[in-house]
Amino acid sequence: MKDQTEIAALMAEIGARARAASADLAIADAASKRAALEAAAEAVWAGRGEILAANARDLDYGRDKGLSHAMMDRLALDEARIQGIVDGLRAVAAQDDPVGEVLAEWDRPTGLHIRRVRTPLGVVGVIYESRPNVTADAGALCVKSGNAVILRGGSESFHSSGAIHACLVAGLRAAGLPEDAIQLVPTRDRAAVEAMLTMTDTIDVIIPRGGKGLVGLVQRDARVPVFAHLEGIVHIYLDAAADAAKALRVVLNAKTRRTGICGAAECLLIHRDIVDTIGRDVIRALIEAGVEVRADAALQGIAGTVPATDEDWGREYLDSIIAVKVVENIDDAIAHIRRYGSNHTECIVTEADAAAARFFARLDSAILMRNASTQFADGGEFGMGAEIGIATGKMHARGPVGAAQLTSFKYLVEGDGTVRA
Amino acid sequence: MKDQTEIAALMAEIGARARAASADLAIADAASKRAALEAAAEAVWAGRGEILAANARDLDYGRDKGLSHAMMDRLALDEARIQGIVDGLRAVAAQDDPVGEVLAEWDRPTGLHIRRVRTPLGVVGVIYESRPNVTADAGALCVKSGNAVILRGGSESFHSSGAIHACLVAGLRAAGLPEDAIQLVPTRDRAAVEAMLTMTDTIDVIIPRGGKGLVGLVQRDARVPVFAHLEGIVHIYLDAAADAAKALRVVLNAKTRRTGICGAAECLLIHRDIVDTIGRDVIRALIEAGVEVRADAALQGIAGTVPATDEDWGREYLDSIIAVKVVENIDDAIAHIRRYGSNHTECIVTEADAAAARFFARLDSAILMRNASTQFADGGEFGMGAEIGIATGKMHARGPVGAAQLTSFKYLVEGDGTVRA
Repeated sequence: MKDQTEIAALMAEIGARARAASADLAIADAASKRAALEAAAEAVWAGRGEILAANARDLDYGRDKGLSHAMMDRLALDEARIQGIVDGLRAVAAQDDPVGEVLAEWDRPTGLHIRRVRTPLGVVGVIYESRPNVTADAGALCVKSGNAVILRGGSESFHSSGAIHACLVAGLRAAGLPEDAIQLVPTRDRAAVEAMLTMTDTIDVIIPRGGKGLVGLVQRDARVPVFAHLEGIVHIYLDAAADAAKALRVVLNAKTRRTGICGAAECLLIHRDIVDTIGRDVIRALIEAGVEVRADAALQGIAGTVPATDEDWGREYLDSIIAVKVVENIDDAIAHIRRYGSNHTECIVTEADAAAARFFARLDSAILMRNASTQFADGGEFGMGAEIGIATGKMHARGPVGAAQLTSFKYLVEGDGTVRA
Repeated sequence: MKDQTEIAALMAEIGARARAASADLAIADAASKRAALEAAAEAVWAGRGEILAANARDLDYGRDKGLSHAMMDRLALDEARIQGIVDGLRAVAAQDDPVGEVLAEWDRPTGLHIRRVRTPLGVVGVIYESRPNVTADAGALCVKSGNAVILRGGSESFHSSGAIHACLVAGLRAAGLPEDAIQLVPTRDRAAVEAMLTMTDTIDVIIPRGGKGLVGLVQRDARVPVFAHLEGIVHIYLDAAADAAKALRVVLNAKTRRTGICGAAECLLIHRDIVDTIGRDVIRALIEAGVEVRADAALQGIAGTVPATDEDWGREYLDSIIAVKVVENIDDAIAHIRRYGSNHTECIVTEADAAAARFFARLDSAILMRNASTQFADGGEFGMGAEIGIATGKMHARGPVGAAQLTSFKYLVEGDGTVRA
């Protein structure tokens, strides 16, 4: 462990290198960036043995530390997950280059021609926890969007992230791009995180990717702008006009497909008119699927439920547990979500267009769904390739954060000696 | 003057009212918002006598305080400027409503249909200085974009802003919209500004509009996100391939049309190959127009120039003064602008497409121009109606900030019982 002064000097050095690399990367051509990501994908696949060995060391460390099942699941790699990383890198490589894209253009009566074009943000700082694949996803999306990136992985995934990072750097080298474009903080010391949060001269935006504790720390202490990725306290509302089969299918998938992801449903709200029909069937199916159903008073007559307490509303379980509540009407459901939600993803199951329109208009979550599983809340599923995460703030980036969301823009204005009257 | 506790309570009350009003305004229909702005425009014109009387009180106060010429010019209203305010309100009223606009929509192979639609940000805080018209511009743009706004005008424009604010509230009332949608902080106490900067629960974004001191204070102390509006240290580069007539026309307009606005040119960079031809003519014309030309060593042979010092690079005069420097080539010009600029607006005068492309690619100011006066750096001139200012940051809003730039977005996803594999 190094002392604070050494960490501060190390981080300042990393910041300066990132800033320098970002100037080159911002004007790198699309082919070079693509080549770097393709070479990185090959390096990851070729180096899967080393990556799995590094991951085994991290898993030992995690077991010793007594990580939760959900955390260990996020940390673990196998050949299929490495294939997923490779596919992710290739998918981002194949995407259109966002830099220089003309977002809008128009002429003015003065004779000016104005274009708004995409530009990189500069330097992105990513602070994450146990998932080692974030190293590859974040690195790839930043390179694609012309940003240098400083990655600060969790101490749990220290070795796995290091092994993946080496492959990304090999890709940059192969394509003739600056190796400092993707840097991984080479220490587990928490002081490195504190330093990143105040590096306003060298980091343009911080993206925290992890649990409530990490995101809260970042939001409280950061002087650098933050793309907040809060918890996914995901609600599904079964409307009076819900279709029974769709309700069953959507709720089961949203809760059980994978419980540890931020798009997993955590709370089910049921319109009182359908409690004894669709509601009962859905709850029974959840229980049969092994889900612990924490039900409010009105539902406790259903066999197998356990009583919900006040602490169950607004809670992110990331586990095989769901809170269930009866609501009087759609406005009651909306009020509950406004009070307890985290502005991540919510779903209404209904055949009534007016109900869906009301739900869509009166809630302001980053993602609102109708008759679809909330597990679709994902950059890949949205067609953005990989994602750094799902932003729940309202500023700049929102919802899945892919390469295009890591850009800014500038105006290019052309005249012919044109002056203002 | 109230004490700190009273100010804190007052601001908390204003914040809570704004948050409540924003929920109504977010779902207000386009016709109501338009009617409110049209009624406000009528009220301003009908009330111009009261507004001018209030402005006279502010001008007396400003004279007593010894405000600079530039500040007094910003503060002063006359019937023509009030007509400008009325026109601005009507122009924003006539714009398309940004809220609900579908920014993109696409289908996924899973059967999902995804739309990205514009939503209001929520509550905007605007902190400004002497220009009373900001009250109307900011109020109108926030209403148009479905945001509630808390306006904190400068102490210099206290009475003028109050008189204009009363007209805006009359407009809201006439249209049946919540009067709390546009609030003006009713005290000159600086503690109100401090309070706004930390009201993270009730203010979604702060827009500082004013000098270096104000913007610096806001950037340093704000916990609420900020759309930074730094100084306009605007550069014009006369390339080796500049057209003589365009260079003369553009530079004179950019410097002299109005010296107190942020788009006014402050520094002229001249390629050494044209110093003795175009450069000399432009400098002579500036001097004839009454501009003080602060020239670097290479130019001091030109009669009427005064020597520039190191303090002249990167300086915003907002006055009839310009710094002039000879550069070796375009990269030298770009390096100077990167070092001393404020990422606001820069212009290249050239007939060479390659030079323009290089200037556009390698600089990252919010606005880059070719052969056009930098005084076009203005939301109205860009076709956005009124503007709250020119953002120089890279996050969320950049360049002229009109109604569309005061929005966020959300994703609306529709399926048919669609689940994730």
